[in-house]
Amino acid sequence: MSAEHSSDIAETIRRIGQQARAAGRALARSGTGARNDALAAIAARIEAGSEAIAAANAADLEAAREAGLDPALIDRMELTPGRIQAMADGLREIAALPDPVGAVRELASRPSGIQVGRMRMPIGVIGIIYESRPNVTADAAGLCIKSGNATILRGGSEAIRSNRAIAEQIRAGLEDAGLPGDGVQVVGTTDRDAVGALIQMPESVDVIVPRGGKGLVERIAREARVPVIKHLDGVCHVYIDEAADTEKAVAIAVNAKTQRLGTCNTMETLLVAEAAAERVLPEVGRQLRDAGIEVRGCERTRALIDEAVPATEEDWTTEYLGPTLAVRVVAGFDDAVAHIERYSSGHTEAIVTESYPLAQRFLREVDSSSVMVNASTRFADGQEYGLGAEIGISTDKLHARGPVGLEGLTTEKWIVLGDGHVRS
Amino acid sequence: MSAEHSSDIAETIRRIGQQARAAGRALARSGTGARNDALAAIAARIEAGSEAIAAANAADLEAAREAGLDPALIDRMELTPGRIQAMADGLREIAALPDPVGAVRELASRPSGIQVGRMRMPIGVIGIIYESRPNVTADAAGLCIKSGNATILRGGSEAIRSNRAIAEQIRAGLEDAGLPGDGVQVVGTTDRDAVGALIQMPESVDVIVPRGGKGLVERIAREARVPVIKHLDGVCHVYIDEAADTEKAVAIAVNAKTQRLGTCNTMETLLVAEAAAERVLPEVGRQLRDAGIEVRGCERTRALIDEAVPATEEDWTTEYLGPTLAVRVVAGFDDAVAHIERYSSGHTEAIVTESYPLAQRFLREVDSSSVMVNASTRFADGQEYGLGAEIGISTDKLHARGPVGLEGLTTEKWIVLGDGHVRS
Repeated sequence: MSAEHSSDIAETIRRIGQQARAAGRALARSGTGARNDALAAIAARIEAGSEAIAAANAADLEAAREAGLDPALIDRMELTPGRIQAMADGLREIAALPDPVGAVRELASRPSGIQVGRMRMPIGVIGIIYESRPNVTADAAGLCIKSGNATILRGGSEAIRSNRAIAEQIRAGLEDAGLPGDGVQVVGTTDRDAVGALIQMPESVDVIVPRGGKGLVERIAREARVPVIKHLDGVCHVYIDEAADTEKAVAIAVNAKTQRLGTCNTMETLLVAEAAAERVLPEVGRQLRDAGIEVRGCERTRALIDEAVPATEEDWTTEYLGPTLAVRVVAGFDDAVAHIERYSSGHTEAIVTESYPLAQRFLREVDSSSVMVNASTRFADGQEYGLGAEIGISTDKLHARGPVGLEGLTTEKWIVLGDGHVRS
Repeated sequence: MSAEHSSDIAETIRRIGQQARAAGRALARSGTGARNDALAAIAARIEAGSEAIAAANAADLEAAREAGLDPALIDRMELTPGRIQAMADGLREIAALPDPVGAVRELASRPSGIQVGRMRMPIGVIGIIYESRPNVTADAAGLCIKSGNATILRGGSEAIRSNRAIAEQIRAGLEDAGLPGDGVQVVGTTDRDAVGALIQMPESVDVIVPRGGKGLVERIAREARVPVIKHLDGVCHVYIDEAADTEKAVAIAVNAKTQRLGTCNTMETLLVAEAAAERVLPEVGRQLRDAGIEVRGCERTRALIDEAVPATEEDWTTEYLGPTLAVRVVAGFDDAVAHIERYSSGHTEAIVTESYPLAQRFLREVDSSSVMVNASTRFADGQEYGLGAEIGISTDKLHARGPVGLEGLTTEKWIVLGDGHVRS
């Protein structure tokens, strides 16, 4: 690639950034009504333009098949009529959520006589970098519009035609509602240099949200010169305590692994207190076998689950995202927490216990984005938590942790109300 | 400097980081009582050890004089008996604040039957890099202990003896209360490589708080591989609107500039609506002249304040931190907001107006960490806002914005309470 070409890309991204900054100011000042109108207008435009979107998507799918891409990836790319309708429905659901922008909390008088509180505000310009699924274009744009932010979207090159077609409807819908069309821009080039330029532009981009594989997220976190809301792996644990109810333990362990295999909140390692192992593991093993799950276990696990194969050190850190589960028998609570501390990715962990003090200690001592008592890790999700939609699940500790909804796309400033107050 | 030497430093910092990580786990699990006991014990130790601290400080001061350091800097370094007592008093005030750790908010039932809420937790290990004032050693350590974090402190090399002497008392006080002495560690070497190592150790340090000059903060933000809570400059504005009350306007403008000259929340640019200029600026000019402030003004300002010298473009972006003020007459509200948008550092801005709609618009449209109506910018401060003490004033938008107290040193995780709940 020539240096000249590379500087063209940088110039294009720079211009997109400036347009986003200007549009972001307008969106931040727009009213709740205008932003909800825009979401409704985009939904209507997507429905009316569904044939054009489907045609663009068909071209992407054909190119992907010709290029010999993985059929699972091609399946995720496909925009069926149902998926197009789901994009429109999702935008209307976002419109129905409460507006986070301008909300003031904890406004209270201080001894000096001033009133001090905090007002929630858009962050400004949000860059979203994602792979394959073109419906993210509408979902992410919707959350950013609702929260008063401008967005720059950079989807996977294999879905570029679909993304451009959806972006056209979004622009038209924004303009229908009297908001700037540049409020949502899709980077039209498939060049990889575009990502490099986008993540190193703090003057125009306030935060980057990467949605995709670990390689993509780690590369962006390493190279970005703006804050990144990272979504890394979920090596989630369920710990079945000595004081666990057998029925709840079996139900939660099986649900956490089998309810869906490929999600980041799926359990990947099951820990069982040795005092509970005999009454729990054989039944868990039976149900997992029936569900087609391979168990990789420690020695004591293998004594109770016939089919289990030996686990290696690597199994304790693996996010399988598939029909495999690591199982370990531990001495008890402290041993379980030590295992989690050492091997967990900090996403979601659950304890099953009837013990009040151990439930309290687990909630307090385990340092993951979601910590649960007597519930399946599969609940770690924006919809289940009542956030409406989510833009991802953050494994970072600062700013946004766990499922990121509208609140994670905003910030709070301090406001001070006086009546001529001066400091003495 | 030899490569061998540099790797020795890196090894030392790496060991300090590992000790901090282990101590941080213990602090996070400690009770409110133990952490408050430690703060009280450290206060008592500082009082009892005040002579040793003063002697170490005297040695720093002598070395600084011999090295010909700036007398203002030497003055800031001095630990008088009053300043030593203030450190002890400050720790007792921090002990008296409510404990942020473990607080649960918004625990509510979801349709699935689970209860979901958020629990406040320590961040883990906080690195603080600061210059000259050794009292920061006690203040910062106190806030971090209270919020359940381990701390690594790296002060200026000119105050190394004072910092070490204070650190000894902190370690002893932590151990008095049964907490790990490694909970607060002062980097004992003055080598600059130590900073480089400290900010690139995400496995042991969760966040860096730089307190010092712009050069230090910018270098750290550029080179850090962990999140940084930045405190950059305060180019703060007061805008006197057409609808301002004259008396309030004069009092706020004069207080915002003169109440203290060298702080980041001091007004550096005054904007006045042209319709208010004649009734406000001559009196503001007189009072500023009496306070020894030089005015650098636009043409219309100079027509109303005789002593004003011409302002240049550079004046609109300058944080004087001294007896100089930039003054500009603007057409009105929109012009003032556009000036702030272009030149402000995003720290603190105030409007003086009796107009309800303009006050509301200013609060909503100005995107700074503190936005005020009819109050002096000097109120932008952790104590004035009711945070107790502050570790700095963040000019970042994410995680911590504006004055950073205990809340800014913590994070929230999600907690889920079930009774055998599984996802369907």
